[in-house]
Amino acid sequence: MVYLDYSATTPVNTEVLDTYNKVVLNYIGNPNSLHRLGVESKNLIDEATAQIKHLLKTNKEVIYTSGSSESNNLVIKGICNKYKNRGNHIITSPFEHSSIYGPLNYLMDNGFEIDFVNLDSNGMVDLNHLKSLIKETTILVSIASVNSEIGLLQPIKEIGDIVKEYPKCYFHSDMTQSIGKIDLDISNIDFVSFSAHKFYGLKGIGCLLKNENIIIEPLIHGGKSTTNYRSGTPIPALIVSMAKALRLIYENSNIKYNNILELNKYLKSKLSNYDKLYINSNDNCIPHILNISIIGIKPETMLHALERYDIFVSTQSACSTGDMSKAVLALTNDQRRAESSMRISLSYLTTKEEIDYFIDSFDKCYKELIWK
Amino acid sequence: MVYLDYSATTPVNTEVLDTYNKVVLNYIGNPNSLHRLGVESKNLIDEATAQIKHLLKTNKEVIYTSGSSESNNLVIKGICNKYKNRGNHIITSPFEHSSIYGPLNYLMDNGFEIDFVNLDSNGMVDLNHLKSLIKETTILVSIASVNSEIGLLQPIKEIGDIVKEYPKCYFHSDMTQSIGKIDLDISNIDFVSFSAHKFYGLKGIGCLLKNENIIIEPLIHGGKSTTNYRSGTPIPALIVSMAKALRLIYENSNIKYNNILELNKYLKSKLSNYDKLYINSNDNCIPHILNISIIGIKPETMLHALERYDIFVSTQSACSTGDMSKAVLALTNDQRRAESSMRISLSYLTTKEEIDYFIDSFDKCYKELIWK
Repeated sequence: MVYLDYSATTPVNTEVLDTYNKVVLNYIGNPNSLHRLGVESKNLIDEATAQIKHLLKTNKEVIYTSGSSESNNLVIKGICNKYKNRGNHIITSPFEHSSIYGPLNYLMDNGFEIDFVNLDSNGMVDLNHLKSLIKETTILVSIASVNSEIGLLQPIKEIGDIVKEYPKCYFHSDMTQSIGKIDLDISNIDFVSFSAHKFYGLKGIGCLLKNENIIIEPLIHGGKSTTNYRSGTPIPALIVSMAKALRLIYENSNIKYNNILELNKYLKSKLSNYDKLYINSNDNCIPHILNISIIGIKPETMLHALERYDIFVSTQSACSTGDMSKAVLALTNDQRRAESSMRISLSYLTTKEEIDYFIDSFDKCYKELIWK
Repeated sequence: MVYLDYSATTPVNTEVLDTYNKVVLNYIGNPNSLHRLGVESKNLIDEATAQIKHLLKTNKEVIYTSGSSESNNLVIKGICNKYKNRGNHIITSPFEHSSIYGPLNYLMDNGFEIDFVNLDSNGMVDLNHLKSLIKETTILVSIASVNSEIGLLQPIKEIGDIVKEYPKCYFHSDMTQSIGKIDLDISNIDFVSFSAHKFYGLKGIGCLLKNENIIIEPLIHGGKSTTNYRSGTPIPALIVSMAKALRLIYENSNIKYNNILELNKYLKSKLSNYDKLYINSNDNCIPHILNISIIGIKPETMLHALERYDIFVSTQSACSTGDMSKAVLALTNDQRRAESSMRISLSYLTTKEEIDYFIDSFDKCYKELIWK
């Protein structure tokens, strides 16, 4: 099997799973309980929280959630609910995940106004346009660090610098596709979302990092927990396993990154031989994601053709619906490319042999399908 | 160790954990992915869903959540958001969990009106009072099947019958403390919340059961998932492990129930020998929960005294805050009992030897503390 869909979800590192099992079996107390078993569970969570803050070099509050979809909903609705008296204007990009557009659409139906920032020809956020969009009523800018379909890495430091000039406006970045892959300065981002299952952790646990001094309305109200902003029984085993996954993914991160970069270059050079094939990912993209379009071949058809060779890639992102990639359209302005895009996503686990097998199989599928 | 805090959380059944591990390792695809690995994960979830519906004898839609706090927030806000044009009136009881009062308080701050139904002297919902409270603007009745602190079992079938007469009003029951403990007819309840970690499953997974024909506003908006009502990557391993936990807990359920009932009677008879001790749980309570008050002894003091004997009980429910049990006050109308209440919760794993050790240790603690 050649799994090339790591951006949809990653296989769990067995060391992470071992940690999970140990905590499940040895820490049975509810962290909200007053007794020693509860306190032990609570202390374990506190240690994991300290480790996560250390690894991400941040003093932000760590709010545990069920994953990035919850984190994104929590921050977007949490800001808008809390500060609706300040304004009703939100700025985002055409490159966001459905768990950003979902809450934004809901807010639009409830009187909020959404603007999309322009992109330059390389798919980078046009910083001057962003500045021009911010107005008196703007309360939130939400722009992902890395787009999940194409891998475009946005200048989030510069975006943060701009938003910082407007103290009544907050900056959120969905960093689901960058945490664990690249090292970014998050110091001037107010809110950061991410999810463990994108970096070889378990599904069902994620974070919203929040600047300590900002108050938001919770999404899940209730009793006490590790934070005022998210009720529900905290989950020691998932939390500790996420800290472990984060520690492991950042070990030898330069070596991992460079290996993926080499494989990406190699793959790109091989794919450049096909005349109906366009490479949508450009030099501003992280090497983990390679988005391509094959004009005239439906992406699902290619996906299922490759599947017969036990190769797994993705059309759009796993959580998208619809026939066309909005992200590829926004970048290329080419409907044919948007209708035929496919995502190949690489990992530090990916080998040159796998890429060779992929290229060989892809070649057969391409030739078979292009003549149909 | 004698763990008597099963209503806060339960230790995981190792068979459930084995299932979890198998699914994590063998089903790596994102259930939202189009390829075979995704489809296999999706199919596995569908099988678990069918099993849960079969075990609970229901045709309701199974919406997977991170647990009861999310389920309760989803249904309460989901109904109120969707049907706010119909009315702004909600009825609840004085016996609910903080994850019910949390969203209700939030809604009160946003223009909703909450009424509390009266109780009779046994702590049962006064059905005539409930009828009298329902008005043109009532859109939701939310009453737990079993209160988490005292164990009072409410007549939810009869409550359901009453609410059914008002087609514009829905009935939700937080069944976190009854699913896996007793068999209840849920056919005329519109929404049911529960969480796996209360029946020897894993933390981080729960359900909202929803009548198929009712539309609600999601709490977590976004892309496709197993349902329209909750976005986010579905979690095959947690979902399948919950179905397994549910199947296991319902095996020999009569034997389990009767054993707990016997232990409860035995414990109650022993505790009736203390003149400062009141037993708050009555004959309308499930035997899994025994709530007591010791006048003059702070519950935290007794909790920590028992802890020295490696015995773990609870003051109020794990997620409550505040100095006084609202539930005990509502039942007994006695502030001293409300200030000194303690919850002992039993399991099918509890043995007579454990209860004897508890009684022996409790006796020492009681004598020591009462003279202080």
